[in-house]
Amino acid sequence: MSFWKRLFPGTEAAQDASREKLNSRIVFSTDRNVDVYELEELCDAVGWSRRPLRKVRKAIECSFCVVSMYEEYAEQRRLVGFARATSDHAFNATIWDVVVHPDCQGRGLGKALMEKIVSELRQADISNITLFADPHVVDFYHRLGFMSDPEGIKGMFWYPD
Amino acid sequence: MSFWKRLFPGTEAAQDASREKLNSRIVFSTDRNVDVYELEELCDAVGWSRRPLRKVRKAIECSFCVVSMYEEYAEQRRLVGFARATSDHAFNATIWDVVVHPDCQGRGLGKALMEKIVSELRQADISNITLFADPHVVDFYHRLGFMSDPEGIKGMFWYPD
Repeated sequence: MSFWKRLFPGTEAAQDASREKLNSRIVFSTDRNVDVYELEELCDAVGWSRRPLRKVRKAIECSFCVVSMYEEYAEQRRLVGFARATSDHAFNATIWDVVVHPDCQGRGLGKALMEKIVSELRQADISNITLFADPHVVDFYHRLGFMSDPEGIKGMFWYPD
Repeated sequence: MSFWKRLFPGTEAAQDASREKLNSRIVFSTDRNVDVYELEELCDAVGWSRRPLRKVRKAIECSFCVVSMYEEYAEQRRLVGFARATSDHAFNATIWDVVVHPDCQGRGLGKALMEKIVSELRQADISNITLFADPHVVDFYHRLGFMSDPEGIKGMFWYPD
C-alpha cells in the first residue's frame, strides 16, 4: 500500500491524498543520521536483498558522501531516494546504492538525486566520479553525463576462484 | 638509471649488483606513512601524470587500505610497487593506483601486490572488490580472478557536459 493511501485510507481520502500530493515537496539531506530501517524498506521496495543493518550503518558512516531524498507533506516525511559515495577525499569517488522508490519513479527524481550527489562530489573537488551500473540503468546514467568504458577502461569485480 | 646501477655504478659493480639482487627480498607494508616523493617517482617511471602532492597525501590518508611493495637489499629499500583501495568499510572496495616499477615487471610482483591488497580487503570482510582497468591490463586482472562487466554491469565515469 502506498504511503499516501496508508496516510489516507479509503477512496475519497485517497483522492484527497492525491490532491495533497501535489503540495508535497522533495527535500535532500546529506545527514548521515539515516534511519536504516526506513532505508532497508526502500531497498526492499525495489527488490534488493536484505543486508545486515550493522553493516549498512557502518557503510553509511564510512561513506564520503550520503544523499537522502525525502518527500515531505505537512508534518510527514518519507525516504523516497538514497545514494552514497566512497572516496579517497582527493581524486576518486564511486557512487553506490542509488535507489528511488517505485511509487516516485518517472518524476525525474532519480535525475535530481544523481545531480545532487554529483554536485556534492564536485564541490569537494573530486574529479573522477565513477559507478557500476546494472544493464537496465546504463542509458539512464548516459543521459546524466556518465560514459561507459571510456577509452576502453573496464569495470572489473573480483570473484574468488 | 636503475636503482641497482645507481647503487653500484660501473660495469663490474653492476654485475656484482645483479648478483646481489638475487639476495634482495620483497616486503609489503600497509603503513600509510608512504614517502610521497618516492611514490610520485615510481608513478613517473610508468609514465603517469604528476599530481599535487597535497592531494596524494590526502588520498593515502583517506584510503581504506594502502599497500606499498619494497625491494630490500642490505640496508637499502626501494619502493617498487603500490596500490590502494577506497571502501565503505562494510560492503564495497575499489582499488586504485596499482603500479609496479618497470625494472621489476615480469617477476610476478604485480600479481603478488594484487594478491596482498585483495587479501587485506577480504580480511576486512569486504565482499565486493572492484577496480577500473585500462585495456592493456584487463587480461592481467582476469588472470587474478577479476571479471569484467559481470552480468552486464558497466563501469561508468562522469564527464561534465
